Amino acid sequence: MFKCWSTNNHSYQTLEDAPMPMLEFDAARPLDMVLLGRVAIDLNPEDYYQSLSQSGTYKKYLGGSPANIAVGLSRLQKKCGFFARVSADQFGDFALREFKREGVDTSRIYRCAHGEKLGLTFTEILSPNESSILMYRDNIADLSLEPGDIDEAYIQSAKALLVSGTALAQSPSREAALKAVQLAQKTGTPIVFDIDYRPYNWKSTDEIAVYCHLVAEKSAVVLGSREEYDLTEALVRPGMTNAESAAYWQDKGAGVVVIKHGKKGSTAYAKYGTSYTVKPFPVKSLKSFGGGDGYASAFLYGLLEGWPLADCLELGSASASLLVAAHGCAPFMPTLQEIQAYIRGCKQEYGDMVAHGDAE
Amino acid sequence: MFKCWSTNNHSYQTLEDAPMPMLEFDAARPLDMVLLGRVAIDLNPEDYYQSLSQSGTYKKYLGGSPANIAVGLSRLQKKCGFFARVSADQFGDFALREFKREGVDTSRIYRCAHGEKLGLTFTEILSPNESSILMYRDNIADLSLEPGDIDEAYIQSAKALLVSGTALAQSPSREAALKAVQLAQKTGTPIVFDIDYRPYNWKSTDEIAVYCHLVAEKSAVVLGSREEYDLTEALVRPGMTNAESAAYWQDKGAGVVVIKHGKKGSTAYAKYGTSYTVKPFPVKSLKSFGGGDGYASAFLYGLLEGWPLADCLELGSASASLLVAAHGCAPFMPTLQEIQAYIRGCKQEYGDMVAHGDAE
Amino acid sequence: MFKCWSTNNHSYQTLEDAPMPMLEFDAARPLDMVLLGRVAIDLNPEDYYQSLSQSGTYKKYLGGSPANIAVGLSRLQKKCGFFARVSADQFGDFALREFKREGVDTSRIYRCAHGEKLGLTFTEILSPNESSILMYRDNIADLSLEPGDIDEAYIQSAKALLVSGTALAQSPSREAALKAVQLAQKTGTPIVFDIDYRPYNWKSTDEIAVYCHLVAEKSAVVLGSREEYDLTEALVRPGMTNAESAAYWQDKGAGVVVIKHGKKGSTAYAKYGTSYTVKPFPVKSLKSFGGGDGYASAFLYGLLEGWPLADCLELGSASASLLVAAHGCAPFMPTLQEIQAYIRGCKQEYGDMVAHGDAE
Amino acid sequence: MFKCWSTNNHSYQTLEDAPMPMLEFDAARPLDMVLLGRVAIDLNPEDYYQSLSQSGTYKKYLGGSPANIAVGLSRLQKKCGFFARVSADQFGDFALREFKREGVDTSRIYRCAHGEKLGLTFTEILSPNESSILMYRDNIADLSLEPGDIDEAYIQSAKALLVSGTALAQSPSREAALKAVQLAQKTGTPIVFDIDYRPYNWKSTDEIAVYCHLVAEKSAVVLGSREEYDLTEALVRPGMTNAESAAYWQDKGAGVVVIKHGKKGSTAYAKYGTSYTVKPFPVKSLKSFGGGDGYASAFLYGLLEGWPLADCLELGSASASLLVAAHGCAPFMPTLQEIQAYIRGCKQEYGDMVAHGDAE
Repeated sequence: MFKCWSTNNHSYQTLEDAPMPMLEFDAARPLDMVLLGRVAIDLNPEDYYQSLSQSGTYKKYLGGSPANIAVGLSRLQKKCGFFARVSADQFGDFALREFKREGVDTSRIYRCAHGEKLGLTFTEILSPNESSILMYRDNIADLSLEPGDIDEAYIQSAKALLVSGTALAQSPSREAALKAVQLAQKTGTPIVFDIDYRPYNWKSTDEIAVYCHLVAEKSAVVLGSREEYDLTEALVRPGMTNAESAAYWQDKGAGVVVIKHGKKGSTAYAKYGTSYTVKPFPVKSLKSFGGGDGYASAFLYGLLEGWPLADCLELGSASASLLVAAHGCAPFMPTLQEIQAYIRGCKQEYGDMVAHGDAE
Repeated sequence: MFKCWSTNNHSYQTLEDAPMPMLEFDAARPLDMVLLGRVAIDLNPEDYYQSLSQSGTYKKYLGGSPANIAVGLSRLQKKCGFFARVSADQFGDFALREFKREGVDTSRIYRCAHGEKLGLTFTEILSPNESSILMYRDNIADLSLEPGDIDEAYIQSAKALLVSGTALAQSPSREAALKAVQLAQKTGTPIVFDIDYRPYNWKSTDEIAVYCHLVAEKSAVVLGSREEYDLTEALVRPGMTNAESAAYWQDKGAGVVVIKHGKKGSTAYAKYGTSYTVKPFPVKSLKSFGGGDGYASAFLYGLLEGWPLADCLELGSASASLLVAAHGCAPFMPTLQEIQAYIRGCKQEYGDMVAHGDAE
Repeated sequence: MFKCWSTNNHSYQTLEDAPMPMLEFDAARPLDMVLLGRVAIDLNPEDYYQSLSQSGTYKKYLGGSPANIAVGLSRLQKKCGFFARVSADQFGDFALREFKREGVDTSRIYRCAHGEKLGLTFTEILSPNESSILMYRDNIADLSLEPGDIDEAYIQSAKALLVSGTALAQSPSREAALKAVQLAQKTGTPIVFDIDYRPYNWKSTDEIAVYCHLVAEKSAVVLGSREEYDLTEALVRPGMTNAESAAYWQDKGAGVVVIKHGKKGSTAYAKYGTSYTVKPFPVKSLKSFGGGDGYASAFLYGLLEGWPLADCLELGSASASLLVAAHGCAPFMPTLQEIQAYIRGCKQEYGDMVAHGDAE
Repeated sequence: MFKCWSTNNHSYQTLEDAPMPMLEFDAARPLDMVLLGRVAIDLNPEDYYQSLSQSGTYKKYLGGSPANIAVGLSRLQKKCGFFARVSADQFGDFALREFKREGVDTSRIYRCAHGEKLGLTFTEILSPNESSILMYRDNIADLSLEPGDIDEAYIQSAKALLVSGTALAQSPSREAALKAVQLAQKTGTPIVFDIDYRPYNWKSTDEIAVYCHLVAEKSAVVLGSREEYDLTEALVRPGMTNAESAAYWQDKGAGVVVIKHGKKGSTAYAKYGTSYTVKPFPVKSLKSFGGGDGYASAFLYGLLEGWPLADCLELGSASASLLVAAHGCAPFMPTLQEIQAYIRGCKQEYGDMVAHGDAE
């Protein structure tokens, strides 16, 4: 039987014992999730393990964290919609075609009107553990999302709204995201906030703290790394521990607070003080990025299914491992069968101790 | 005895019966109010009652709604501070000198670093009832206020923080204002939100609704006209009546909601359903603008003094009348003695019915 | 008899002996001059001889160097046209009305389309000899002049085209001015280049040198101070004397090169090495600015009339003296009768030595 | 024997009879050519002959027309320098390394200081004859070249200065190019102007006409297509024939005027009315772009060598054919031996009629 560590009562417990997350989704709504944020292009070198200046050949993939999560959720049979702007060129065609092929509803993805371009992420894979990125993010399509693109009916048709923090980095996307948050509150739509901090486009740390706090305090689920929580909490209470952060946001109304530890796994905090920590599944990684979006899509799948929190964590962690072993992100998102088969294999080889406690 | 109309129980009641506003100020804090927003220059024609293109001579006054309110409060013996940026030129010198002469603390008024200029408002006074303005608001000093200019200690030293909605119209002033709001919440400082909508610098009505709502929902006192409330409520619940608006914001936590009716007076809503309406004091007006800032400063004076709401309204309305009879704004702000003498005079002439009910 | 100094043959000579300027104007063209550049508003304090921060009352005048020159030429009975953009507000109304009243053709003065404002110049008059200015030049009307505003037929209808160097400071006005220069060359219209350097809007000294040189090298008449010539010549030959500058530009094709020495007068260089220097006329000045535009308009009047160069200088210098004694600029431009009466008066009092040699 | 058509005397003539171009280069100068303009990245699909939205793999090449020409000249053993800005990232590293490997002097190639990125050109190769491009040109490295980057000594060390018209499209690169032109005139350095019109960054056709004319009128060699000459001549004399264009620019001082006819070859006009037309060499082309830069580098090689104009044309045309048969541009630039071997092969197969007359 699979076990995981509860940091609350300092003991392992079987997943069957794990409490249900404190979230309720309206089953009558046709869409499982509407995501808001960037759609971009990844250009990953075929001849990797050398500097980006040396690499000569690049593979083009659909990219952008919320776009990847939408594809991940779709492959897990969840019906997603998306608020976005994509370029009025062949790359915009590509993004729309990919979304359609994956079954994502594209009725709220609009074309840019002023020559904005899809962001490009050239990834430098120096080794399985070292990577960097070279971004083209000027006059960028995703941040041209306008408040007028956001409609209440579409939000109300979804069980949840996911907002990527990167969408808050600049106007008019910032106001579009804040409008979506206001309409989600109005329509009783739980908000999932993926802090998703990228050091582009933001002008100051105060700005990050102001806007991320404004959204996090209205969210039902918050996802982020320790660094991302520190940025979000910088004005109101800097220096909190993970448990303090979780309590702070749950005080504001969050049902689930997830803190990701990168290669060390992640911890999820439910209300009433329960928390679970999971370590990454063992895998031979090709690169050090891409896991987060696999994690988020599988974790949110579990939440939407009403799974116990520990099961959500397990699924997320396994998906993350599958992703870091792949050359790209969106096109390599696994199905539920693939993740579960992988989990079974790992358990046979490594036993039940795949997930265990983590004293922060 | 002075009477005013309660729209709640549909009867006149004497001011002595009026309930106390539901606001508490920390008497131990040295500053009565810190204001955040624009400091500007008014240029009012001496040869008025003709088109601005015809007027040839202009008087220079300190201007900008929150600057005027700060001067008004100072003349009423309240100690004010101010978060602002002023130009690094002779007009910035002028603004600082005026503030100092009035006793406003200028320790948080900084000079602009990139050539920004103080806004100019050329007023066109066509008749006592018709006016318009010609504004210079490009590369403007007030909207260059930065989040880094805002410090928690200063906010915590004040009994209340007044935020002018115009400060939300553009970055980086927008983030500075939102940071101040976040720090006011953290330090338990009641927020006074003067919606103060000006059709400059804003990019869309969605933008106005998003940001004004974000501040209003955290405020203890909200001041605005019907049009301003409509703009603020556009996304969440358009078309509310005054009473519905008051209830909506009080639900969010506001203690006092004031709705100004221009030449027809104003209504203040306290918690628990009590409201008072006052008509303007009779006056021979020179121009149709400037009354609002006199109103706000005197009304807030009353609140800070813990006066009954109806008395606050009366003082505000009298100050407004004195201002529309004057050639400018800031330098013509009355003292308490002047307002009270004016009220006494009006009562002798017009009786106790100066203020009366208004069925919206 | 009036005498002036020829720096060429180092002797005084009577004005009658002075050679004709090497310029030919097409008498058949209906307009005497089309000017291109800024139209602005001057706001001069009535309570001057103190800091601008102290002054409380301002007079509004039409301003902007080429606008002043156009008014000056009109009062001297020359028919002027103008390429400009003015604001779509009451100040734009004012500027157009002033031009019409003075008889300047306004058919090529267009309204700004994107909220640009007329520039404002608040003048600080500290003493008869000390002054400074506070300028509002953001999102400025004059620099919004577009290439599409410039038409060949209008240029071809004028005896000369005056380009103010300030129009070169920023796009799209820069391209509009360069287009006008190209069309002036095409249509055989002599170009008068008033370097008119203002340290606003320009980004670097290289930029100034590049553009001013491009226009000066195509001009028939160049007007500027030593500092302005230094800026214009910085890339090609820095450090020239006045005589060397004159020779350099005449080599490129200029017929007349005028170097203004501020309070010390000015020197005009004709082709073939002849030059004349004039000192300012004696006057009790009110302020230290405004003389240049009086000078330029009267000097150009003389050139258009085909007067000897020394007579042009004399008229320009007298007009300059009248202007520094006045409170403003455009509305105080003198008629020919007024200048000539003033010259006669000066001569009676001070004799023929009003103008004399100046060894640079 | 090789023959080409002279449009002047309407007869074929042998290359031996062809007159020398009217150009003189200072043999004592160490650099053969300094080029000014864009350095960029080409991303050409490996899986071409389909839409760019379908292509999944891209090869990265050094790109940008003047960069390609510099590489071409280097492979022809000419010593080149370059004025440019490249990004402060791995792509900037790549560009510098490529230049160094090819022997181009990089002492005047500076890194961008404000996050500007190298331009990206994704090429869509639909068929051998159909192509389009998707460009990333926002906040672009090449147009951030500053006037301060241009020094007189470097220009004076070169036999010629090549200016790419694209450098004129925007400030501050525009002023840098104009400064280089002014310093080239000062130092007696012949200017080669490659009009190189790209419909990006330019704001209006007037703007193109103004700036391209300003440079072309000072150039010794002008290269462009009929469309590019039309744009350049739009203000001064629209609708000229090729021969009229050549005469117009030679009147202004040009020694050689080249008009490129795309797939139909090109015509070169020397002074004194002589002209030569060449058709493209037969080749199985892979794509329809890239030929122009091969053409320019080989043609300029001939000019620098003092070859007869017809020989220059022949070499240029052969190089162009080799380039359109290659997958990329810069890395496929041929050596002299390769071009000459290709020419010999073509002549053996097709005889002397490779080049022939073209009645425009």
